[in-house]
Amino acid sequence: MAGAAGPGRSGRPTLAVVGATGAVGTVMLQILSQRADVWGEIRLIASPRSAGRKLAVRGEEAEVVALTEEAFDGVDVAMFDVPDEVAERWAPVAAARGAVVVDNSGAFRMDPEVPLVVPEVNPHAVRRRPRGIVANPNCTTLSMIVALGALHAEFGLRELVVSSYQAVSGAGHAGVRTLREQLSLVAGTELGTRPGDVRRAVGDNTGPFPEPVALNVVPWAGSLREDGWSSEEMKVRDETRKILGLPHLPVAVTCVRVPVVTTHSLTVHARFEGEVTVDKAREILATAPGVVLFDNPAAGEFPTPADVVGTDPTWVGRVRRALDDPTALELFVCGDNLRKGAALNTAQVAELVVVEQ
Amino acid sequence: MAGAAGPGRSGRPTLAVVGATGAVGTVMLQILSQRADVWGEIRLIASPRSAGRKLAVRGEEAEVVALTEEAFDGVDVAMFDVPDEVAERWAPVAAARGAVVVDNSGAFRMDPEVPLVVPEVNPHAVRRRPRGIVANPNCTTLSMIVALGALHAEFGLRELVVSSYQAVSGAGHAGVRTLREQLSLVAGTELGTRPGDVRRAVGDNTGPFPEPVALNVVPWAGSLREDGWSSEEMKVRDETRKILGLPHLPVAVTCVRVPVVTTHSLTVHARFEGEVTVDKAREILATAPGVVLFDNPAAGEFPTPADVVGTDPTWVGRVRRALDDPTALELFVCGDNLRKGAALNTAQVAELVVVEQ
Repeated sequence: MAGAAGPGRSGRPTLAVVGATGAVGTVMLQILSQRADVWGEIRLIASPRSAGRKLAVRGEEAEVVALTEEAFDGVDVAMFDVPDEVAERWAPVAAARGAVVVDNSGAFRMDPEVPLVVPEVNPHAVRRRPRGIVANPNCTTLSMIVALGALHAEFGLRELVVSSYQAVSGAGHAGVRTLREQLSLVAGTELGTRPGDVRRAVGDNTGPFPEPVALNVVPWAGSLREDGWSSEEMKVRDETRKILGLPHLPVAVTCVRVPVVTTHSLTVHARFEGEVTVDKAREILATAPGVVLFDNPAAGEFPTPADVVGTDPTWVGRVRRALDDPTALELFVCGDNLRKGAALNTAQVAELVVVEQ
Repeated sequence: MAGAAGPGRSGRPTLAVVGATGAVGTVMLQILSQRADVWGEIRLIASPRSAGRKLAVRGEEAEVVALTEEAFDGVDVAMFDVPDEVAERWAPVAAARGAVVVDNSGAFRMDPEVPLVVPEVNPHAVRRRPRGIVANPNCTTLSMIVALGALHAEFGLRELVVSSYQAVSGAGHAGVRTLREQLSLVAGTELGTRPGDVRRAVGDNTGPFPEPVALNVVPWAGSLREDGWSSEEMKVRDETRKILGLPHLPVAVTCVRVPVVTTHSLTVHARFEGEVTVDKAREILATAPGVVLFDNPAAGEFPTPADVVGTDPTWVGRVRRALDDPTALELFVCGDNLRKGAALNTAQVAELVVVEQ
């Protein structure tokens, strides 16, 4: 098995990265190279067509091996970032071979036998994993949940109204490529002022999106669920409820794609059990692990994707108390959807599994 | 006075367009050339530095005259699109000369002696104008208010939570130029994946915006008001209340700039007095004047700025009932911020003034 177990790492647990060549997988390898190193061998696994490729992790080259049952032999923890149907098939295989699976797909998140874990919010949940699988939340949920969890712990959350400004890398390499190709077609033109002019310039080149995303915003992410809701919107609602342990929390969500490469933003209207103050909210956010409070509009300080991309924390700005409801707060939240929104949280959960064992 | 009164127009009222050379003024002239023609002379007025320029309106060339007291002689209705401080000074001058002013600045909107009018929602309000001034709402309010007004008339609005996706032309020609220049700097690059890389590429070229807007979203519009609110957010709240005649309506707003040239979008969470149904809401929206219901996600139908730009109506899609509250609806709304959001509504109000006289 072609893995990368450097000197001095014997006796440490073996980690597998499944989906190592994808948009999230690529960031997983960067993150594994940056964090305190708890792993022995790191084994890179991908589809057979990527097998044999060499990728760098922890400053060493490792060869990608094909996804097979045997690939999980000796693996202690396997981080999965693959499509739902691949996870559905292969996560139980890895678990049966003795690995604890930390899965970033949507396949297991709402399974009552699978914990859905954000280390800053519900770390203890990782212990009870009867299927040997731990789920990682959706990137949109993850981009806000650390900040919300901290506020909930103090104030008690009673209702959420959320709108997203989602980056194209949420749709993988293809999403990024599509935006870049579309930008090349519209930059330097007068497009964006006549009905359909962007659509005509872009033609069929909409990639994974239903509409052009350059010079546009698209109120759709995922697939169609009942009553006009998108799967992405349902995920934000259902996962937020599960992570916070509030199964009846009212959550209203509209998910919108924007022409940003990486980093999801969200506006959050959060209503709590009693009266809140901005001062107390700011004190909580300023000290919460994994949160950066960046909120001084007088000095032009509020988070934007251009500054947040590539960083680990959840950035929070525009903290205001609702003018007409002393129990509600307004926030603007940014999180790198490939890092905390996917690869980082998966890596944190994988480490938690090892520490808790 | 250099005006444009074509043949057969004698006896009709004289219209002045003040701020004729701006982003909104340009669209005003297009709209005046497209709508049923009720005007005699159309007089184009702008700052002295634009005087003498020739602009086309109704297929004829008209020379821009400088903004002076005498420029309003013989004017029946004057449409203003100028900065607040210019409107503050000159709207009363025009009114004193006998013109009814329809002002698109923020100077008079909350003046109790000045009606704030959207012809589809509160047309009768135009009649009582003791100062001789009628105000036109802010473009963000206008991009949603026609749809909301129709739903309010049936269901009775009780609360609003709104997030905006605002186009750069809301900041005028300079906003559009800034986005286009920034797009030329980022297109064809790998930017958007490292902290600050877009900011470094753009440099000081942020124009009227506090942060880069290409490959970014910026949670700020307008100036800082008390408790961290932006002036744009306060406008949406205060103007919505005034237009709908609901002075105590709870309205929570977060305004965000997006890299779209023209057409504002909004997510709307609207709570009503009693239970609502999606079927009834769709029936109302499908028949409301000035509204297009475009809502069939199964067929990929929802409004986006790329399709809505250049059109007159308010487009509504993603109509859903809140999953956890039978009295609330979720909507995604798009409106061309230069047309219905500014020039079109101003022209409609000007026509209403003439018809009601």
